[in-house]
Amino acid sequence: MDCIFCKIIAGEIPSTKVYEDDMVLAFRDINPAAPEHIVIVPKNHMESANDITEENIKYVTAIWQVIPKIAKELGFAENGYRVINNCGEDGGQTVPHLHFHLLGGRKFTDF
Amino acid sequence: MDCIFCKIIAGEIPSTKVYEDDMVLAFRDINPAAPEHIVIVPKNHMESANDITEENIKYVTAIWQVIPKIAKELGFAENGYRVINNCGEDGGQTVPHLHFHLLGGRKFTDF
Repeated sequence: MDCIFCKIIAGEIPSTKVYEDDMVLAFRDINPAAPEHIVIVPKNHMESANDITEENIKYVTAIWQVIPKIAKELGFAENGYRVINNCGEDGGQTVPHLHFHLLGGRKFTDF
Repeated sequence: MDCIFCKIIAGEIPSTKVYEDDMVLAFRDINPAAPEHIVIVPKNHMESANDITEENIKYVTAIWQVIPKIAKELGFAENGYRVINNCGEDGGQTVPHLHFHLLGGRKFTDF
């Protein structure tokens, strides 16, 4: 497997973890776009939101249960945050393993 | 209920619907930030991602099953898209009813 996020999940590449369970890993983005920039990934490999199925949707569900928990844990839930999922080339997806960017600690305005 | 999205769901305010089922409504944003700009909402009122619970997570699950279907239906799944959820003031949330912006038809780069 040549996927950088699969290697992070496997512990072959180091990351600054902020949350982990059986289905989800969350770690700090190495090029943060905000004071708080967490990348949240499913532990099974799926390329993008286009590959969501009846079988793997449970990973996406788990991620959305975890997102507000991480924001609360890190102390920026009340002020607010932005969550971004990029899919494919137009979306600006850079790693072909489904992931969500959780961004906090500053104000976000336009798109 | 004074929520604009609840009124759209109830049909009291018109919208250009692109998808609807028992749990989810998707309609075109009246101020599009991209050639394709769809707003996707759960049919039950919940203010933001901070209010996701064990009980209402099923609506978020339904939304993420619908997102790739809408992108495919509208013909921009293969090129790609960006999905944004804004939570609270820092996130730039303007309507206090959980919603996801599905943006396509142009390239997205930075955050």
